[in-house]
Amino acid sequence: MRFQPLANDTFLRACLRQATEYTPVWLMRQAGRYLPEYKATRARAGSFMGLATNVQYATEVTLQPLDRFALDAAILFSDILTIPHAMKLGLDFEAGEGPRIERPVRTAADIERLPIPDPEVELRYVTDAVRMVRRELDGRVPLIGFAGSPWTVATYMTAGQGSRDQAEARTLAYRDPGQFADIVERIAAVTFDYLSGQAAAGAEALQLFDSWSGSLAPAEFERWVIAPTARLVERLRAEYPDVPVIGFPKGAGGKLGAYARETKVGAIGLDETVDPLWAAKELPRRLPVQGNLDPLALRAGGEALYSATQRILDAFAERPHIFNLGHGILPDTPIAHVEELIARVKGGE
Amino acid sequence: MRFQPLANDTFLRACLRQATEYTPVWLMRQAGRYLPEYKATRARAGSFMGLATNVQYATEVTLQPLDRFALDAAILFSDILTIPHAMKLGLDFEAGEGPRIERPVRTAADIERLPIPDPEVELRYVTDAVRMVRRELDGRVPLIGFAGSPWTVATYMTAGQGSRDQAEARTLAYRDPGQFADIVERIAAVTFDYLSGQAAAGAEALQLFDSWSGSLAPAEFERWVIAPTARLVERLRAEYPDVPVIGFPKGAGGKLGAYARETKVGAIGLDETVDPLWAAKELPRRLPVQGNLDPLALRAGGEALYSATQRILDAFAERPHIFNLGHGILPDTPIAHVEELIARVKGGE
Repeated sequence: MRFQPLANDTFLRACLRQATEYTPVWLMRQAGRYLPEYKATRARAGSFMGLATNVQYATEVTLQPLDRFALDAAILFSDILTIPHAMKLGLDFEAGEGPRIERPVRTAADIERLPIPDPEVELRYVTDAVRMVRRELDGRVPLIGFAGSPWTVATYMTAGQGSRDQAEARTLAYRDPGQFADIVERIAAVTFDYLSGQAAAGAEALQLFDSWSGSLAPAEFERWVIAPTARLVERLRAEYPDVPVIGFPKGAGGKLGAYARETKVGAIGLDETVDPLWAAKELPRRLPVQGNLDPLALRAGGEALYSATQRILDAFAERPHIFNLGHGILPDTPIAHVEELIARVKGGE
Repeated sequence: MRFQPLANDTFLRACLRQATEYTPVWLMRQAGRYLPEYKATRARAGSFMGLATNVQYATEVTLQPLDRFALDAAILFSDILTIPHAMKLGLDFEAGEGPRIERPVRTAADIERLPIPDPEVELRYVTDAVRMVRRELDGRVPLIGFAGSPWTVATYMTAGQGSRDQAEARTLAYRDPGQFADIVERIAAVTFDYLSGQAAAGAEALQLFDSWSGSLAPAEFERWVIAPTARLVERLRAEYPDVPVIGFPKGAGGKLGAYARETKVGAIGLDETVDPLWAAKELPRRLPVQGNLDPLALRAGGEALYSATQRILDAFAERPHIFNLGHGILPDTPIAHVEELIARVKGGE
């Protein structure tokens, strides 16, 4: 398939360490509940997975924030749990707080039974959405595809739900690291096919969300986060050398430097707790950084937003930088604050 | 009051940067539910605060782990929420999960109404327990007193309970930093009196638990964690120069170095997510470190416990070091694992 050449490639150039005229910006969960048009589509879709698995709806909500704001990238509307969903573990977003997986994977027998989905079949709705979004974008801005990291997906698959400090997965990993490695490797294999499929379908950058990397002790962080990520990055780079992979190890704290150096991600996402001045010194000198603004500061607006934004812009003035939040945008964030932020980032240098 | 001179001052010497023959060890929540004798006393006391506020019971459970294990320090059995309790905000530990505060402090009027307790009156049960524990210890090992940090206590006082990412307190702090500063300063003033009172009663070291420092964005971490801690440390040091203050900023991640340098704590606690090899490079060269072992590794035992323990011992071999967990010991931890750990730490060098 042929797509229009990019009218705005600022985001991609920052990812590839090239000079840009201004700091590109996009926002995690930019297609989300703070937008009335998102809520309208979500209501028509009936359920969260109904929205994510419908190519038409997923395309629609992916594009909504771009019609409203001068954002420099689109990110596919989807979820980090599409892989366990495709493995038919009974993913349910409806039961109150956060996702639940009906049939968690804990024993050797559970692992043996685990189906290995073919992303081109069971996750076809994702690659179809990538193609449709690319067509509709018509070269306006690049499209980011994504997946959950093997570790983060494994925490849900083993615990069956989000859990305090991921104690269930971490305990399984301590008690039987060989068996846990089996789970992580199976997820990693599907994740590679899944991300390759998104790149082949037209995703121009890929982000790996490691939402629960923060709770791991250091040796476990190396084994379950850094090692599988390094392998994924290496394989993706070999196959799609022009598609940057952005790693986002939320909560990695003092382990960010090791993550950046050892995984060789193309760019790194920073959560809101990271001091950008410290990160600017700790991270490899030319590594593009993305993220860091506290979503609570964006919601609060005013002086809190102004000074946090400035601190980030100043800290990363000397390296490739993509402005973003440190975490998804909150549902009750005023749209006016988003407008102000984007104007400030793009005009402020 | 005169107490026996210390038979074992290894812990204190490590805090004061002096040479020790072995690595001293104590465990956060060493008086806790993993011990049957603790559960028996707790049952007699009827409730958690019944246990904490009864001088006899608090003394009894403080001493229990010392009768069982070769620990190098005692820590007073108490809670970080004794100050809001003394402020008569309606602290309740019974209602299911975690503590609740019936009358949270959010408005200027709430702050105005806030009683300023006199630790020698409303918290007398704590200083009495310090005196009784010192007498009963009879010089065996030093006694550590403690308090919650002003920020951590403020998160409970404003939200009324533990909250995901402390969003309530962080939002109040963004929206009205002047008012939030009022709350933090009032807590800090009482905390100074409270810790001074414990030192005067005989506590030989003091620990400041900053359990919820991890969620703060960097500028807010400086304002609500580092600045009040630095003032507390300075004032305590002026009054009790021989009593080391251990800061424990749980979740501080990449901000640990700034915390150590700017607060000038006498020793620093590390949670289980910190890489000890990184910390050994990041922290001031002679600063004593404490903590870091993952409580899940202690519970799991075996190879997981062995290798995590060794990594910590190796990383801190060249500086004053106090072995401890990165978080409180878990209720279902086998006592045999605790015995093994202590034997290993004390014999292992």
